[in-house]
Amino acid sequence: MRILGIDPGFATIGFGLVDAERGQVHMKTYGAITTPAGLPLSRRLYQIGSDMEELIGQLKPDVISIEELFFNTNITTGIAVAHGRGVLLYAAEKCGVPLYEYTPSQVKLAVTGYGKAEKRQVMDMTKRLLKLKSVPRPDDAADALALALCHARSFTSRLPSMGDVKETV
Amino acid sequence: MRILGIDPGFATIGFGLVDAERGQVHMKTYGAITTPAGLPLSRRLYQIGSDMEELIGQLKPDVISIEELFFNTNITTGIAVAHGRGVLLYAAEKCGVPLYEYTPSQVKLAVTGYGKAEKRQVMDMTKRLLKLKSVPRPDDAADALALALCHARSFTSRLPSMGDVKETV
Repeated sequence: MRILGIDPGFATIGFGLVDAERGQVHMKTYGAITTPAGLPLSRRLYQIGSDMEELIGQLKPDVISIEELFFNTNITTGIAVAHGRGVLLYAAEKCGVPLYEYTPSQVKLAVTGYGKAEKRQVMDMTKRLLKLKSVPRPDDAADALALALCHARSFTSRLPSMGDVKETV
Repeated sequence: MRILGIDPGFATIGFGLVDAERGQVHMKTYGAITTPAGLPLSRRLYQIGSDMEELIGQLKPDVISIEELFFNTNITTGIAVAHGRGVLLYAAEKCGVPLYEYTPSQVKLAVTGYGKAEKRQVMDMTKRLLKLKSVPRPDDAADALALALCHARSFTSRLPSMGDVKETV
């Protein structure tokens, strides 16, 4: 199963592709889509949408794992990110790729085993679990790989519990 | 000049088309794009984007006038509206239509002459200025016509002041 993790954004959108087969997760590629600060809002959004469509076409993921949005700090940044995330979801739907959304806590829990882990711990565990030589750059790409990993681990761990339910029936 | 006003949203997106020529503004059509509450977020966003593209293709506006987004009340609704607005801006850019953004105060000022006018006053003035028999329904469509009117009046009123500047040079 090819899982494309997406760290939603507006100026920088991280992506990371992993292959999850028989309990093994391998990193295939990662990177970021960026939009120039000088362009008008609508032009940047159009670039996000068309770049993401092109990326999905190239990487051919089976599923997309994207972070849910929370407004904790800067509301102006939050609005811009929500604009960008809207276009990313539109692109995923247009390409017909099933979409899974995870909260930051779910990602932390799936990757480190602790829902309140520090960002640095999540990055280190992502590096270790994917057997990478260093933490991927930019941070947005590392976050995207953590999202892909989160889906791989959530999906795998869901299977035994479904078996358990069957046994109790 | 054909101006398409858009009241951004997620469940309901109002639109209104006016024709502005030689100081006269005529209403051509108005309505709303709606998305069913039961559908997943990404499906609704895809529908917003494709419906808006189709609408722009049919109505062939010269410019689009869309409301800027402010978060005053419900933040969860605000995030959803920002997602939808992102897709609307993406669609406008994809169709190559120039885009103008106005704040609620700018719309109120342009339509009623008072930046803190009540919603009802804006609707009544929109009806009078466009010589309509009643206030358009839904409210989102009336808001969209007010946005189109705002651009028509801002654009027209800008011309004499440009002349004034020339005279003083």
